[in-house]
Amino acid sequence: MTKMQFLSFEGPEGAGKTTVIQAIQPFLAELTGQEVLLTREPGGSQVAEGIRSILQTKTTPAMDGWTEALLLAASRREHLVQTIQPALAAGKVVLSDRYLDSSLAYQGGGRGLGMDKVRALNEFAIQGRMPDLTIYLDLPVEIGLQRIFENRQDKIDRLDEEALSFHQQVRRTYLELVDEQPQRIKLVDANQDLDRVIAQVQEILQTHWR
Amino acid sequence: MTKMQFLSFEGPEGAGKTTVIQAIQPFLAELTGQEVLLTREPGGSQVAEGIRSILQTKTTPAMDGWTEALLLAASRREHLVQTIQPALAAGKVVLSDRYLDSSLAYQGGGRGLGMDKVRALNEFAIQGRMPDLTIYLDLPVEIGLQRIFENRQDKIDRLDEEALSFHQQVRRTYLELVDEQPQRIKLVDANQDLDRVIAQVQEILQTHWR
Repeated sequence: MTKMQFLSFEGPEGAGKTTVIQAIQPFLAELTGQEVLLTREPGGSQVAEGIRSILQTKTTPAMDGWTEALLLAASRREHLVQTIQPALAAGKVVLSDRYLDSSLAYQGGGRGLGMDKVRALNEFAIQGRMPDLTIYLDLPVEIGLQRIFENRQDKIDRLDEEALSFHQQVRRTYLELVDEQPQRIKLVDANQDLDRVIAQVQEILQTHWR
Repeated sequence: MTKMQFLSFEGPEGAGKTTVIQAIQPFLAELTGQEVLLTREPGGSQVAEGIRSILQTKTTPAMDGWTEALLLAASRREHLVQTIQPALAAGKVVLSDRYLDSSLAYQGGGRGLGMDKVRALNEFAIQGRMPDLTIYLDLPVEIGLQRIFENRQDKIDRLDEEALSFHQQVRRTYLELVDEQPQRIKLVDANQDLDRVIAQVQEILQTHWR
């Protein structure tokens, strides 16, 4: 059995990640009998939220890929030290909306910085602390983008505007990670009704708990 | 002769760095017949100034050393890509108030993260681009702090409040760097009248130009 105190959720825009996580939080609290902290990155502490606002500012010229990767690593460090580690130390279960795998997929794959380099950079931020279990919500790129443009016209941010090929490279990198670390990363098909997605995530968590 | 298009100034608080740089800018313009861009880090572009404001916010608990190092590396990257490189490409001389050596001295030495690790981290930011020449204004720690506390009571920031031992470690690291790279880094004794300091910097620049 995998120890299951620190969990992350990964996946593209439009996979329903936020909705699934919110449904999973009470389920996990009941399953484990522990307090479940739901948190997200980039963000989660005063400094990290400041970094988040820089990342979401539209800049001219567009932000350099390495600047973005360094800012995300700084935010990840802060999130880990100020939010995740204290919660784990207090015996809580931590459920993080995104963690290292997002940088590997988006900056390493999508922006083409290279997965190995982005991983080496992030080692300064996480110093070995990986999630015990990661749920990756997988979705064909076209379907994810279609969902975003239909339902969240007001929330379209910098990433949503990137080319289709960017998102395809993100997905390919996530799938590589699933292949590379099948023990830690569990793929759930997000191209189904949300009820089915949530049920499958619950099944995985039940299997890994105890 | 060292090529002399990208210069940095380094040194502790209270060494008179800002005053010296402002005196050197017109001198260097006349010497080289080129436009001289005076810039500083952290800062110098929209994103970098945003990072600067996060770094200067007093946070509780105090900011983690690696978060600080990652933020400074992000800011350095942005400063390099948006400000320094375009100016160099346009044929300008660039004079930067602080660059990589500051992180090696303050985070690597002062905060104890280790010079080698901080250098490895910053390689993601600078990708080999070092200054052609660096002027290090050297000053005994006690004298630097005394100058700050006498003259700039209103400007005392987070770093000034750190223990004396922090600043001693910063200076030791700067001196190590001078030993390690005597071709690039020139030490100037800042424990003299500012006129003398400026004259000695001018002499060094004159020797290295042509």
